[in-house]
Amino acid sequence: MRLSLQPSLDAADYRFTHTLRTRFAETDAMGIIHHGAYAAYLEEARAAMLRDAGHPYEVVRSGPDGIDFAVLELYVRHRRPLRFDDEVRVHVVVDGLTRTTFQVGYLLEVADEVRATAVTVHGAVDGTGRPARMPAFLSTLVGAA
Amino acid sequence: MRLSLQPSLDAADYRFTHTLRTRFAETDAMGIIHHGAYAAYLEEARAAMLRDAGHPYEVVRSGPDGIDFAVLELYVRHRRPLRFDDEVRVHVVVDGLTRTTFQVGYLLEVADEVRATAVTVHGAVDGTGRPARMPAFLSTLVGAA
Amino acid sequence: MRLSLQPSLDAADYRFTHTLRTRFAETDAMGIIHHGAYAAYLEEARAAMLRDAGHPYEVVRSGPDGIDFAVLELYVRHRRPLRFDDEVRVHVVVDGLTRTTFQVGYLLEVADEVRATAVTVHGAVDGTGRPARMPAFLSTLVGAA
Amino acid sequence: MRLSLQPSLDAADYRFTHTLRTRFAETDAMGIIHHGAYAAYLEEARAAMLRDAGHPYEVVRSGPDGIDFAVLELYVRHRRPLRFDDEVRVHVVVDGLTRTTFQVGYLLEVADEVRATAVTVHGAVDGTGRPARMPAFLSTLVGAA
Repeated sequence: MRLSLQPSLDAADYRFTHTLRTRFAETDAMGIIHHGAYAAYLEEARAAMLRDAGHPYEVVRSGPDGIDFAVLELYVRHRRPLRFDDEVRVHVVVDGLTRTTFQVGYLLEVADEVRATAVTVHGAVDGTGRPARMPAFLSTLVGAA
Repeated sequence: MRLSLQPSLDAADYRFTHTLRTRFAETDAMGIIHHGAYAAYLEEARAAMLRDAGHPYEVVRSGPDGIDFAVLELYVRHRRPLRFDDEVRVHVVVDGLTRTTFQVGYLLEVADEVRATAVTVHGAVDGTGRPARMPAFLSTLVGAA
Repeated sequence: MRLSLQPSLDAADYRFTHTLRTRFAETDAMGIIHHGAYAAYLEEARAAMLRDAGHPYEVVRSGPDGIDFAVLELYVRHRRPLRFDDEVRVHVVVDGLTRTTFQVGYLLEVADEVRATAVTVHGAVDGTGRPARMPAFLSTLVGAA
Repeated sequence: MRLSLQPSLDAADYRFTHTLRTRFAETDAMGIIHHGAYAAYLEEARAAMLRDAGHPYEVVRSGPDGIDFAVLELYVRHRRPLRFDDEVRVHVVVDGLTRTTFQVGYLLEVADEVRATAVTVHGAVDGTGRPARMPAFLSTLVGAA
């Protein structure tokens, strides 16, 4: 287990915040957002952070290096459920950068109330899925602003 | 609108039957299977029919012709809801084959009770998304057995 | 088949426009947005229209009437694929209101280029899934503004 | 973090095995199964284990106690990607049972090759989401057979 990042419960410890609204399609018969929907929320927030930093994921993928940030590990801790139509603030921070991997921490809040924390571990891979050199710009994203 | 197939309510009018079980992840806050899940059910049944016919979709896609069956149109009529853990029989029939497209009809039943009917219209495309020649084997799949 | 609405290709024929961004999770191995993702896009646009009209779907659902707008039919026509990170404008119009059902038409565009059209047919149901009286406010949403 | 179970790489350490086939809808533009699909795979395997043990989840949910097994934590480690049409063997074992929670470990294999390991942590909750007494039968599911 490479996963080592401990996601803070304080939004000030994050670099970037992405806001999204939960979908009815993501609810389940318990009346809450199904836990399987969170991976897409985290990914959407990562993509928004990269876009905001001037490195849209689509450009990273289709550029000369053709890099993908494969998900090696995913951890989500559910503290309180999300519900349909919740406006969720997903706070994001990059950490644990090595030559081949990096970690991303997440704090999910609704109206300043913590709902979940999460961590993903990523590796840079080329178009054939083999490990590739980490793009240099990632080091500029590490840590709170 | 190319879509012209009228899906029969009689299972005897179909060529192939695929059985699947609904997932809890596919339920919604109304306590039923979310309508957005049906496209994946139809696709799973199409893939099972192709596999059964000796032409697994993965082989069609990765073969020398590299053909995809792009979805051009989708129609679903919900007659009664599906619920979690339902064992669904998806009856499938191919029809309306032209040089560039074909249609697939579906009847979804639980314990011989009709739940939904559906139609998809497909076009053969190559790896770049351009129209491609329809594989010859498709004509052998048309109509009830 | 109740479905009768013919979705216009002219954005001016729609009442409301919702903008969303496609997710990487919604792509498939053909490199495009999987057709199964569109139902959630349409639903998100409907929910945004209701919220904009002062009748958030969550309020409709949890209100004294406890109404759900069950999806009876869904039709999607794919004209050009959507891709990851596309900013999609979903134009929405309500039509075909009867005492028990209504239809919604959709036009999906990226940078003023048509990608798909769609129609959904809905029925008002109560918490047990039985047909219920259509909320009066729906008649104020019919047709282009 | 309650999560403590270390999923074994040896299938013999698991109690139950569920086989499923990946869907095309679950692939992404990297040509592999999107990591967000795994939560549904794990859930499907849990449901199959409960059904096999004579306690279908639907009965647990709708029974006199009306218990749900809310997901408190999820951890997935991706060792090698899954691809479309893979037949996946999901090995499942229950462990770490306390008065309020239990953990489930998973090993995902294709043709005896490890693809992923995972852990979920669950709490018994009643219909309003409040902690509830763990059903007695769970203790009979702990550990390898």
